[in-house]
Amino acid sequence: MKLSALTKKKNNYVTYANKGLLLEEDINITNEYYRNIDRALIYKKPTPIKIVKVVYPNSKTSKITEAFFEKPSTLDYCGVYKSCYLDFDAKECNSKTSFPLSNIHKHQLEHIRRVLKLGGISFIIVRFNLLGKNYVLFGNELLEFIDNNDRKSIPYEYFVEKGYLVELKYSPRLDYLDAIDLYLSK
Amino acid sequence: MKLSALTKKKNNYVTYANKGLLLEEDINITNEYYRNIDRALIYKKPTPIKIVKVVYPNSKTSKITEAFFEKPSTLDYCGVYKSCYLDFDAKECNSKTSFPLSNIHKHQLEHIRRVLKLGGISFIIVRFNLLGKNYVLFGNELLEFIDNNDRKSIPYEYFVEKGYLVELKYSPRLDYLDAIDLYLSK
Repeated sequence: MKLSALTKKKNNYVTYANKGLLLEEDINITNEYYRNIDRALIYKKPTPIKIVKVVYPNSKTSKITEAFFEKPSTLDYCGVYKSCYLDFDAKECNSKTSFPLSNIHKHQLEHIRRVLKLGGISFIIVRFNLLGKNYVLFGNELLEFIDNNDRKSIPYEYFVEKGYLVELKYSPRLDYLDAIDLYLSK
Repeated sequence: MKLSALTKKKNNYVTYANKGLLLEEDINITNEYYRNIDRALIYKKPTPIKIVKVVYPNSKTSKITEAFFEKPSTLDYCGVYKSCYLDFDAKECNSKTSFPLSNIHKHQLEHIRRVLKLGGISFIIVRFNLLGKNYVLFGNELLEFIDNNDRKSIPYEYFVEKGYLVELKYSPRLDYLDAIDLYLSK
């Protein structure tokens, strides 16, 4: 995407939002930006893969010829920011009214509880695709909802009330660390 | 290995040390122990794999049929302990007198610098196989040596002087968080 094409538009926010990059791509680009300016060091964990068969075509090469994707038992991203341990996941959602909890696996919730217990910062970044809105919802608020509700989804209003809205912008694309700053200043 | 076989021995330390588990296995077992008692949450990052070809034998299964191992650009382990971000690597060494710096890639050193700059705790755990000794050497001491020496290896004495000796024991096998406690109390 060329910058010139964008600067011609008056409303970059809408332009970018409509370009439809995946949330994960936005986060990866943002993390790279954070690394480049030494603001934070955050990586996406590689997807765990169960390797079944490896062959060695020559003495220097090993080639995997049979393997399967495994379900991650943790969250997708972790890293360090202002001496804090961050651990979070990115979730996209196609409902306009609520975020289905089926998006979060039980072992991921368990992981979030553990991170919080040990003094880390854990959260989810949820993109409501049809609304063009991104929210950071911290682990304590997420767990509070789950522990006190029988509902199978979190209403959008809960994000508005308890979450942090993160607007898409040019650079960094999804400046979610601003939400962490607010959280830390509380 | 059965517990009964071990308890018959007077000196579990030597018994275990001689069993020749890989350092990585010792750390994985220790991390599992830490998780179980809620002391820390530390994971080994999956080895990054470059996937070339995936087939879909049926609608529910995807099978990787061609893939290659990639070199990790970071360290192997990261996690949270006492609200701190930990990031470290495990290295085995077959010299009795020094640790060859060729064991650490340049981008890994760069990674350690970044972690330290952002307030994280970074270190290496080095096992001198022939001496049966394990040392934690913190990033600042590692970088201080590298930045002030032209040598291609770190003498064993430097580990004795600047590192933290971690004895193998029954459980947890390699209680390296004791070294972190000492580091934090300084």
